[in-house]
Amino acid sequence: MGIKKVLVANRGEIAVRIIRACHELNMEAVAIYSEADKDALHVQLADESYCIGKASSTESYLNVANIMTVALNADVDAIHPGYGFLSENAQFAEICEDNDVIFVGPSKRAIQQMGMKDVARETMEKANVPIVPGSDGIVQSNEEATRLAHDIGFPVIIKAASGGGGKGIRVVEKEEELTKALNVTKQEAEKAFGNPGVYIEKFIEDFRHIEIQVLGDRYGNVIHLGERDCSIQRNMQKLVEETPSPALSEAVRAQMGEAAVRAAKAVDYTGAGTIEFIYDHTGNFYFMEMNTRIQVEHPVTEMVTGIDLVKEQLNVANGQPLSYQQEDVVLNGWSMECRINAEDPSNGFMPSAGKVDTYIPPGGFGVRVDSAVYQGYSIPPFYDSMVAKLITYGETREEARARMKRALREFKVSGIHTTIDFHRNLLTHEKFIEGDFNTKFLELHEVKG
Amino acid sequence: MGIKKVLVANRGEIAVRIIRACHELNMEAVAIYSEADKDALHVQLADESYCIGKASSTESYLNVANIMTVALNADVDAIHPGYGFLSENAQFAEICEDNDVIFVGPSKRAIQQMGMKDVARETMEKANVPIVPGSDGIVQSNEEATRLAHDIGFPVIIKAASGGGGKGIRVVEKEEELTKALNVTKQEAEKAFGNPGVYIEKFIEDFRHIEIQVLGDRYGNVIHLGERDCSIQRNMQKLVEETPSPALSEAVRAQMGEAAVRAAKAVDYTGAGTIEFIYDHTGNFYFMEMNTRIQVEHPVTEMVTGIDLVKEQLNVANGQPLSYQQEDVVLNGWSMECRINAEDPSNGFMPSAGKVDTYIPPGGFGVRVDSAVYQGYSIPPFYDSMVAKLITYGETREEARARMKRALREFKVSGIHTTIDFHRNLLTHEKFIEGDFNTKFLELHEVKG
Repeated sequence: MGIKKVLVANRGEIAVRIIRACHELNMEAVAIYSEADKDALHVQLADESYCIGKASSTESYLNVANIMTVALNADVDAIHPGYGFLSENAQFAEICEDNDVIFVGPSKRAIQQMGMKDVARETMEKANVPIVPGSDGIVQSNEEATRLAHDIGFPVIIKAASGGGGKGIRVVEKEEELTKALNVTKQEAEKAFGNPGVYIEKFIEDFRHIEIQVLGDRYGNVIHLGERDCSIQRNMQKLVEETPSPALSEAVRAQMGEAAVRAAKAVDYTGAGTIEFIYDHTGNFYFMEMNTRIQVEHPVTEMVTGIDLVKEQLNVANGQPLSYQQEDVVLNGWSMECRINAEDPSNGFMPSAGKVDTYIPPGGFGVRVDSAVYQGYSIPPFYDSMVAKLITYGETREEARARMKRALREFKVSGIHTTIDFHRNLLTHEKFIEGDFNTKFLELHEVKG
Repeated sequence: MGIKKVLVANRGEIAVRIIRACHELNMEAVAIYSEADKDALHVQLADESYCIGKASSTESYLNVANIMTVALNADVDAIHPGYGFLSENAQFAEICEDNDVIFVGPSKRAIQQMGMKDVARETMEKANVPIVPGSDGIVQSNEEATRLAHDIGFPVIIKAASGGGGKGIRVVEKEEELTKALNVTKQEAEKAFGNPGVYIEKFIEDFRHIEIQVLGDRYGNVIHLGERDCSIQRNMQKLVEETPSPALSEAVRAQMGEAAVRAAKAVDYTGAGTIEFIYDHTGNFYFMEMNTRIQVEHPVTEMVTGIDLVKEQLNVANGQPLSYQQEDVVLNGWSMECRINAEDPSNGFMPSAGKVDTYIPPGGFGVRVDSAVYQGYSIPPFYDSMVAKLITYGETREEARARMKRALREFKVSGIHTTIDFHRNLLTHEKFIEGDFNTKFLELHEVKG
């Protein structure tokens, strides 16, 4: 066992999650924290902790120099980046390598290949992973774009090759709007990402967001762990995730799983990653993007497979082969996750930082809480607004849903606004109960909070 | 669905557990509470709640008249007794029936048959369930006792037929002590239980306490859900339970399961029950007793089977057939439970009631907490000293143990003494790690707290 000490380059629930995995593997965990996070739970649970800068993320959790200084002074063997922050930063992965610190994640090259959207698209096409009809890489001229859009049919979507997070994207409904939209998007892309390259795809409106969890090791083994349906979103932010998806047939599940394994193998992927797919109302699926890190919603997969993804990430980073082969992966029952945020749904989901006066999380059979909040803690206003990930397990979808409903009911938080009531109403919405929804659900249906 | 409203005739974590099951089944839950329990969590989580008397159990949770008055006024369909208090009181079951309220448990007759130790012993012998060698029922004379003890060999144990909870029991090492011991035990039994009847069994010294969970319905179906190893005890009180047992072979597991089903069928058992066995160092097992109620340690069985035992109790009480057949019961992975008590291990496990200043329970993958404690709550001195049942799941025993170790490590409680550190030391004891222990473990090995 090479890895004995791990620096957790993150905060909040995912830092706590990683510390837990380290301790279960008898590894020491080193926490880093900003000045705003000195009372944070991840600091309390770690074996050592170091302040790395001011509250602002750029001065702390994105501060590569300070983080590497701690890593070297604390003599850690590895750095786990969690999600967000530096987790998909290829340069950071390289700096770790240069300093003989293991980056718990895929190679720098895999991060780059999947981070550039046009490169990822080409790589997937070569690997026989279905992609949305569109241009072969960057469109070279307005004429090419017009011809292509005409062939695939409107509406189309223009995407900046270096874009992400919903930026550098523009939907075009009619041919006469195309040239202007292309020019504007290129200018925006140049300004925002320093790269004016854009490509064109068919715009698919009503779809489910379904993603496949994969695990790879250094010996070329890649397996998948089934799907997650993350279609319940608000402004592209996932709110509820579940596995299995109520929409997939066994046949499509198998095809999607195999496609995801091909995708990961195409970039020699190691560790935990996710291939996100568009699943349209006709039953076709298309590659959307790959997240080259652990995801917020990973727990639902753990609940139905019994496989600890973060421990498996650490094992793989440690040079061990995967603990599982594809045939060992058996999906049992159903799991759902609600992201409970410190937000006020009755006021446009305005973030609601501040002191948590009461915090009584739910418990009992089939209930898992991943959180870094405790009674008396003050949620700082500088980072995401996550209070807790509430995850339930049931033998059936209905049992997992009923359990989530009762868990939400007994979850007591005061002092801040939360989305608990919003989730209670969502969970009892007829369409949700039926499993009949896509990414437009919250645009089409009013859910009170 | 006949049952729409359930009175929970209990307090603490088991009352919370039952309320959770009711809510998941869309049943309303009515709480009762003593004057000492007005701030209790079960009161906060219930749909309705009623004070039924003073702090003393006899005036509240054992006060049948007051409980039945609430049941009738609140118009409940059923009463769930939990464990302890009225749960194995045949007369209470009869009073419920007389008042057209469903008692969530077995028939009055089954409770009686298993409650009288000599009757239970005879019933088991007839059902071909192994019993410890001993007398056929009550010993009629000192001469019979002497002859019998001589035949089965010393040491023997004298037990009062109506005894229980470790009372009315005496071990006899040599023949010359037998007559005196018989006379003393009979006198004690007469005084304590109003019944001087005693019987004799071979005394088995070094054994594991292994029990089988069973479920029965009104249609004669009985299934078993594997075993629990509850050998880690202090003064006959279980401290750690796990399933599977590290000691059982598949063959013995199957034999014990089948014997437990025969035992339950012999008394037309309905609902959840447990057959406790003595498992000796030569690999033989013998009936010890049957608990005709849900047990404290039921969660470990839920974790490896996925079956919600309390929901199944309610379904059976509702007249439904069992949701599972024997072949549906698949045991996955491993589960352990530590009973975290408000006690001071460094001071003879003295109970430590009082205000809980800090309470941060552990969470994350594979961790379940069943508790009625929250930060700011005052644990009253009148009842048991349970703070929480901490339950972990793992794919292997070692994963479940490592997870328990890290969960104990992150469990923060201040303001009262607890057994958390005691459990941490126990979990890292070499013999425990090896699974090499019996009921004498804590007599033979020092574990600090």
